Amino acid sequence: MISGSILKAVVYEEYAPDDNYAKILKVKDIPDPKPKANEVVFKLKAAALNYNDIWGMRGVPIAIPLPHVSGSDAAGDVVAVGEDVKTIKVGDRVVSHSNLSCRTCALCTSGREFDCTNRQVWGFQTGPLWGAYSELVHLPEVNVSKIPEGVSYEDAAAASMTILTSWHMLVGRAKITPGQTVLIMGGGSGVGSFGIQIAKLYNCTVIATASADKLDKCKALGADYAVDHRKEDWHKEVFKITKDIAAKTGVRPGIDLTFDHIGETHFNKQLTLLNYGGTLVSCGATTGYDAKIDLRHIFFKGINVLGSTQGTKAEMDLGLYWMGKGKIKAEIDSTYTFEQAAEAHTKMLSGKFFGKIMMKPENA
Amino acid sequence: MISGSILKAVVYEEYAPDDNYAKILKVKDIPDPKPKANEVVFKLKAAALNYNDIWGMRGVPIAIPLPHVSGSDAAGDVVAVGEDVKTIKVGDRVVSHSNLSCRTCALCTSGREFDCTNRQVWGFQTGPLWGAYSELVHLPEVNVSKIPEGVSYEDAAAASMTILTSWHMLVGRAKITPGQTVLIMGGGSGVGSFGIQIAKLYNCTVIATASADKLDKCKALGADYAVDHRKEDWHKEVFKITKDIAAKTGVRPGIDLTFDHIGETHFNKQLTLLNYGGTLVSCGATTGYDAKIDLRHIFFKGINVLGSTQGTKAEMDLGLYWMGKGKIKAEIDSTYTFEQAAEAHTKMLSGKFFGKIMMKPENA
Amino acid sequence: MISGSILKAVVYEEYAPDDNYAKILKVKDIPDPKPKANEVVFKLKAAALNYNDIWGMRGVPIAIPLPHVSGSDAAGDVVAVGEDVKTIKVGDRVVSHSNLSCRTCALCTSGREFDCTNRQVWGFQTGPLWGAYSELVHLPEVNVSKIPEGVSYEDAAAASMTILTSWHMLVGRAKITPGQTVLIMGGGSGVGSFGIQIAKLYNCTVIATASADKLDKCKALGADYAVDHRKEDWHKEVFKITKDIAAKTGVRPGIDLTFDHIGETHFNKQLTLLNYGGTLVSCGATTGYDAKIDLRHIFFKGINVLGSTQGTKAEMDLGLYWMGKGKIKAEIDSTYTFEQAAEAHTKMLSGKFFGKIMMKPENA
Amino acid sequence: MISGSILKAVVYEEYAPDDNYAKILKVKDIPDPKPKANEVVFKLKAAALNYNDIWGMRGVPIAIPLPHVSGSDAAGDVVAVGEDVKTIKVGDRVVSHSNLSCRTCALCTSGREFDCTNRQVWGFQTGPLWGAYSELVHLPEVNVSKIPEGVSYEDAAAASMTILTSWHMLVGRAKITPGQTVLIMGGGSGVGSFGIQIAKLYNCTVIATASADKLDKCKALGADYAVDHRKEDWHKEVFKITKDIAAKTGVRPGIDLTFDHIGETHFNKQLTLLNYGGTLVSCGATTGYDAKIDLRHIFFKGINVLGSTQGTKAEMDLGLYWMGKGKIKAEIDSTYTFEQAAEAHTKMLSGKFFGKIMMKPENA
Ligand SMILES: [Zn+2]
Ligand SMILES: [Zn+2]
Ligand SMILES: [Zn+2]
Ligand SMILES: [Zn+2]
Repeated sequence: MISGSILKAVVYEEYAPDDNYAKILKVKDIPDPKPKANEVVFKLKAAALNYNDIWGMRGVPIAIPLPHVSGSDAAGDVVAVGEDVKTIKVGDRVVSHSNLSCRTCALCTSGREFDCTNRQVWGFQTGPLWGAYSELVHLPEVNVSKIPEGVSYEDAAAASMTILTSWHMLVGRAKITPGQTVLIMGGGSGVGSFGIQIAKLYNCTVIATASADKLDKCKALGADYAVDHRKEDWHKEVFKITKDIAAKTGVRPGIDLTFDHIGETHFNKQLTLLNYGGTLVSCGATTGYDAKIDLRHIFFKGINVLGSTQGTKAEMDLGLYWMGKGKIKAEIDSTYTFEQAAEAHTKMLSGKFFGKIMMKPENA
Repeated sequence: MISGSILKAVVYEEYAPDDNYAKILKVKDIPDPKPKANEVVFKLKAAALNYNDIWGMRGVPIAIPLPHVSGSDAAGDVVAVGEDVKTIKVGDRVVSHSNLSCRTCALCTSGREFDCTNRQVWGFQTGPLWGAYSELVHLPEVNVSKIPEGVSYEDAAAASMTILTSWHMLVGRAKITPGQTVLIMGGGSGVGSFGIQIAKLYNCTVIATASADKLDKCKALGADYAVDHRKEDWHKEVFKITKDIAAKTGVRPGIDLTFDHIGETHFNKQLTLLNYGGTLVSCGATTGYDAKIDLRHIFFKGINVLGSTQGTKAEMDLGLYWMGKGKIKAEIDSTYTFEQAAEAHTKMLSGKFFGKIMMKPENA
Repeated sequence: MISGSILKAVVYEEYAPDDNYAKILKVKDIPDPKPKANEVVFKLKAAALNYNDIWGMRGVPIAIPLPHVSGSDAAGDVVAVGEDVKTIKVGDRVVSHSNLSCRTCALCTSGREFDCTNRQVWGFQTGPLWGAYSELVHLPEVNVSKIPEGVSYEDAAAASMTILTSWHMLVGRAKITPGQTVLIMGGGSGVGSFGIQIAKLYNCTVIATASADKLDKCKALGADYAVDHRKEDWHKEVFKITKDIAAKTGVRPGIDLTFDHIGETHFNKQLTLLNYGGTLVSCGATTGYDAKIDLRHIFFKGINVLGSTQGTKAEMDLGLYWMGKGKIKAEIDSTYTFEQAAEAHTKMLSGKFFGKIMMKPENA
Repeated sequence: MISGSILKAVVYEEYAPDDNYAKILKVKDIPDPKPKANEVVFKLKAAALNYNDIWGMRGVPIAIPLPHVSGSDAAGDVVAVGEDVKTIKVGDRVVSHSNLSCRTCALCTSGREFDCTNRQVWGFQTGPLWGAYSELVHLPEVNVSKIPEGVSYEDAAAASMTILTSWHMLVGRAKITPGQTVLIMGGGSGVGSFGIQIAKLYNCTVIATASADKLDKCKALGADYAVDHRKEDWHKEVFKITKDIAAKTGVRPGIDLTFDHIGETHFNKQLTLLNYGGTLVSCGATTGYDAKIDLRHIFFKGINVLGSTQGTKAEMDLGLYWMGKGKIKAEIDSTYTFEQAAEAHTKMLSGKFFGKIMMKPENA
């Protein structure tokens, strides 16, 4: 309930290293948030799951604070604002920006909140009891954005951290430029599907990789070409495509910019595909961290390998702007209630979904 | 006094459009600051005057809030911190960063607090009763920096807003590069004297202009050449120097980067001196705002004319870092007590000083 | 004729300060070009007029070499290549890149051929007898580009120097970014019409200004809004539009980037429209060079005023690439033969045209 | 001899995979260079050895053209210039810029000659019979620079390709900034010793690594700290130093920028030392190419791994400028004559030297 002094949230008080989420996840009342002077409180309308949630429940690789309310993506209606809040008012439709950085260090005040050594991912590293899966959500003013007209709560929450990640990778880090030949690894994933759309917004030629069943969806999102990356020789197929593009347009054969979150298994092959002066930008390593790379690719071709985590509030707002203009859309796989939280997370663990898995309070 | 509930400050309750400061400036008790959760309170040890103070007292060009405590540069010892303050603790030696920006807009979160449309200069636009000339000073955590070891309160306060302005002009805006031929207009002023030192820190060849009596001081600060800019043909003398430099080193004759705060009278002449692709960076216009410029200099030579106001907290910290390393020093002209505030400001109005005019509480 | 030792060209041997072009322009035979080792010779299929041609015939502001063959935009078929030419072969369809820079200085080898102090505009400053209005054209390999499939000789020649100018202004100098609100002054001109299309390629919101009769054409090229800049209060109308855009999308009201070649009369008004941190980029001043500007706009709002002349070969190639992709098209007003050269230039002088005026050899 | 039609050079006509250089290197007469229109011919006064020379003689990893004249660094007096040469005249003291790029592609004309897919290293990939170890040397105008006053032929030749490599790594690629904590791996090598000096020119805090016997030389070149990188825990020692620096100055503990040419064995340890947003720049891999890296360092800390090969002519000129100003000096180990070429290369193979090994014609 909202109006009283307690509210419902999805809470866990112990880890589930065996991935038995049903055992630990409980919907229970937790105390009302008391907004600080710089905070905004909103009533949750939609939240989105992230892989962070699973790490949190496992207690690996870091032991997150217990008892824990998980969830790093939230959208809803503002019901209260602290006395110093200036840009948000009660009734605004808002969505979370999950990068909680210190806002005072030299990196933060240089516009590099993603490099702040004190940054935390809200709903993952924060707590106890501070995350999205709660009827009432509180965040600092700087960590909420207004949702543009025409964008639903679901779409905003589904985009939030993921569009930020993809935007920062391609725009903030890799300085994507119209006309480049861009390779989006894992185009069927959340970051990948935004990656495809951002690269098309920038008028690039896009080759996406995915498993065979997701190739059509990649093309539907705008990819000019799609390649099954489970084939041993996927990279040869990609290179062949770049030669075809080159023959038609006069650009260099090869990849100018590759977008990675796969890691270990596909890393060095991406390096072989890159042009002189090309860029690999990476936000993760779903297949493993231990990459073996041939350094000659890097120094001889003058390659840039750029790491990327999170992004700035301003970058998330740009992503939302383009969603409001209808140029980028979120993909939603399915929606669950708080009571179905274990089922939702088990689905995420299975990998059998396309787009975001959402969660809502029972009566949102 | 500090320990009680009231404290002394330099206050005015009406404007002095006739520059009769003695009539309006009073040292009186004002209420203790009540620190917000994100604020720091420090006991003032030294404050510095800025031309802003005079505009404030005149009520022109903007009618600042009354009653007013002026002062945008303050240094002292922390005596209290709000509950959310993380990086500053009681006892720290700190100095103010006077750019109060909103910290939440897309510009602020992109590292462009200087372009925030809500920014205010503390002690000038703020109030009532919120500025530096007060025994106890309060500011948000993000608006104070620790003073490096070896830098005095006086030097820190004298530098604060001025070194920030100069640093942002040369480094943040004009992207100064080792080996450039740099022209520092008004090298005898506060921003100019930091400009000379920053350009030398960057291993540039520096030509400073000043009135005849300040040329030696410019050279003492590191300028390689100094030219009297009251001579009609000062720019021809500058160009001749650049030809001599070129003959010796093989660089292009002409100026790569010119640092301006003079405006109207000297603006177009600076454009004539600039090399192809050269830059003029401007933070003000002490001789007037109405510049007549020949646009051909700008487009034919591909020139950059860059405006600059304030800077980031991170930039001020870099300035302080170099003061701590002994590479940049503040120039102090003279020091006054709160009771002598009218005298101090009258001196500033006269223009007859070199370096900062300082003010301190009676017993600091 | 081509195969023999002489060929026809449009030649003048004296200036026409009275703009009586018929008196001086003669079609006559000139000696065959003897290609240097690094040069390409091509048979002209289409050339385009530029205002440079008129300055040349007037002998003002510079006395160009006589006898003179004018013309800075040429497209045709390669008939011979020098022994060191590697990337162009006989039979290639090519177009000129008119910026003849030294290619050896520190600016050229840094990718700043536009800042080379030895650069010359081919067909304007070059000679005697070296320009586009000639049956056979010769240029260094680095000053010709292959024409992409699907782009005609006429379109390539019409674009050449103009698309380069617009591309360099918006992309090279002003670093245009998707989502910006961009003002294209004089959208009905050659540079303006490319400016509109480039800004749309970059997914910006475009407001174009033009005289009343050209507003529809600006919209047909992609401008989201078009304003008659002959109205005294055109800038107020522009500002009102930016407020409407802001209300819909959440961006700042005001202009982020203004594209100027008008100069004197409209310069300061553009500065008033710019947002904090905004940019004015200028490549010329058709209404006059003597701008009066209020410097406060520049320094208080942190504005960038950027001059721009010519651009790099690589930038022209990007423009051609997008023409090949059908995203940018050239506007052609009319086509004349060499014999009609005086008529063609008289039309250009009149200002009564939209798009490029073209010229061809009689039998091309 | 110079004035006649033949001249002496160090020539080999077969490879020496066994490193028996004495067997293949012969001083013999070769034909006079016939300068092309864009070429400069100079009489050799000093040349410097590079590891390229050894790869060339081995015929591994690429089979270079035979018969071969090796040598990529040459300085001397101009004796002839081609008809199109504009900036160099007979009698000028010049030094080679060994990056022979095409000068016409989009990369070259964008100022990225180092990313030109047609680039070749002069004296290594070029031939037959085209390299530095020859009494008369010919190169395109764009591949020679004037030697600044005060810099000897020996110093210029010793610097040439090496200072270019180091400058491009730190300045062109890694955007080194005053105040950074910079780690120079292998500070006793040619690139490393310039790396130390460039980082000090940029007013950085420099930690150099080297074998124990070269630590003092690193400090003599300006390194603030020197660490023996043959110790297993060298990286822990480096980190401890950065904590000391941090304690004194308030900067972050950790490395901001690391300069690598060691590769395999030390690569991942460098990544562990880097700060959030830090940069590793690499120009080679003397200990091997197969690096194993933990990708988490890269993406979680937002690291930049940047490859670097060669650089621009303009960058080499900046290096020479600073040598002319006395801020950077070349290190010379020893000097041999053409007749002693085998001995010189055998010494290089041994690794027992500090600074460049030089070679001169008998009578230079
Ligand atoms: Zn921070
Ligand atoms: Zn702001
Ligand atoms: Zn040049
Ligand atoms: Zn090239």
